Amino acid sequence: MILYLNGQVATDLPIGDRGLAYGDGVFETIALDASAQPQLWQTHWQRLSQGLVKLGFTNDLDELYVQICTDVKHALGVWANANSASQESRGVLKITITRGVGGRGYLPPESASPNRIVQISAWPQGREHVATDGAQVHVCQHAWGCNSALAGLKHLNRLDQVLARQEWRDDIHHEGLMCNQAGNVQSGVMSNVFVEKDGVLYTPINDTAGIDGIMAKQVMQVARSLNIPVKQQAFGLDFVYASDGVMLTNSLNGVWPVVLLGQQTFPITDTCRQIQGALKSQLQASTESLAC
Amino acid sequence: MILYLNGQVATDLPIGDRGLAYGDGVFETIALDASAQPQLWQTHWQRLSQGLVKLGFTNDLDELYVQICTDVKHALGVWANANSASQESRGVLKITITRGVGGRGYLPPESASPNRIVQISAWPQGREHVATDGAQVHVCQHAWGCNSALAGLKHLNRLDQVLARQEWRDDIHHEGLMCNQAGNVQSGVMSNVFVEKDGVLYTPINDTAGIDGIMAKQVMQVARSLNIPVKQQAFGLDFVYASDGVMLTNSLNGVWPVVLLGQQTFPITDTCRQIQGALKSQLQASTESLAC
Repeated sequence: MILYLNGQVATDLPIGDRGLAYGDGVFETIALDASAQPQLWQTHWQRLSQGLVKLGFTNDLDELYVQICTDVKHALGVWANANSASQESRGVLKITITRGVGGRGYLPPESASPNRIVQISAWPQGREHVATDGAQVHVCQHAWGCNSALAGLKHLNRLDQVLARQEWRDDIHHEGLMCNQAGNVQSGVMSNVFVEKDGVLYTPINDTAGIDGIMAKQVMQVARSLNIPVKQQAFGLDFVYASDGVMLTNSLNGVWPVVLLGQQTFPITDTCRQIQGALKSQLQASTESLAC
Repeated sequence: MILYLNGQVATDLPIGDRGLAYGDGVFETIALDASAQPQLWQTHWQRLSQGLVKLGFTNDLDELYVQICTDVKHALGVWANANSASQESRGVLKITITRGVGGRGYLPPESASPNRIVQISAWPQGREHVATDGAQVHVCQHAWGCNSALAGLKHLNRLDQVLARQEWRDDIHHEGLMCNQAGNVQSGVMSNVFVEKDGVLYTPINDTAGIDGIMAKQVMQVARSLNIPVKQQAFGLDFVYASDGVMLTNSLNGVWPVVLLGQQTFPITDTCRQIQGALKSQLQASTESLAC
């Protein structure tokens, strides 16, 4: 584990940080590829910066971008050195930006100084086979709250997912499917959901809940490039159960076909395999390098 | 400022703490009275422990209670010593309990070890007159999200209030009034709201949003003891504007009469003064001592 706070090696954060007090901040979890490079870097930064703006961070985002880039480059260098002897360069890069310390209660200080946390940890083992064999998915009881101002963002208020994720501790299920307050399907606990029906891919809109997934965005682009129509619209669990196939997407896991949802089995469709293949090629050819 | 982490003097917290990562925890802000004793201690503990249970903390709460009590007693001793020369023994005790470090993503470790943060800071100056003169209140554009599983709890996911509180930075307004997703009035940004109409006090139910206020609970008890009926029910802004008087309650501020809401002025009612008086007597006679 490599851990930097504002460009310095660190293990701890000031207790007065507003990220802890209020969840006042945003984060990104980014795959480091076989060359130890952050996958879809620009797209991740785009979501991160949109989150900062929506939370009312008034800082100079260009300056912040340069600082984060510098932090990340430094951490990647250390990571590459530490892994030079091993065959595994992949890893998980997590970037957290909090509002920093201070303020009178809920009001952030006018000139708040954000804290930048950059972590690199080992690539998660034992998940690789799920993209091939398919995921077994629990149907969560806990539903997302609704919040149109915060929906889509990857902010630090994540209790909905913590509650939903506690519904299973078995080794059978790989993920959980969550509904929203309207009773429609919203997402996986840690992933976005796509449902295939009569050659069309359906995925929920994150207008009241959910997170605008980076891998989901890629999958939509890839699908369209393969002439597979994608529709972002609301649908219920019944629609999912009556569908031809289900996929879950996530920055680390890529595309997981769902083979079991609750008690119902699903086939892994040709469309899913097509998308997995095209996505792999596209990610390998990606030019979203770490530029700053 | 006095700051303890798990009973030890501290300034920092491990960056891997789930309170930071997900807002996975709860907190209480408690007034220290003129004898430097925590006001309404048992009621605060009750809400804190209910929050822990609802978030799925599986720890022994009796054990945790003894630990927190010990931390607080220790901190109060240091606080009393530090203030022995001054006339001011009052202060603000903040207790934060996080799930602690670790877990695979959103799933907390089965045997998570909570982090206990105990802070004592100076009593906020310059607010005292508001209880006498009345509060000028901004009507917030940002509405509470809805979340029936989390409503009422004082958890660490507080972005709704951070967003609402950023709507004013002037010295004119003392508080903001927030609505919920249904368009009804829910609470102040840092307080609960009571509306007086024809001798009855109305206050919203915190079933989809808001926090079950400790001072609000006291005010309800005091009102009933004065034979003032209290009804917990939904109402809109129109109802507030057509009311006889408005009050805001908070553990540090007690009862604030509202004299200005948006553009409309309100009188300070006899009922409000009666409740303020009775509350003061009740708090002074309170036997909710720090027992452990």
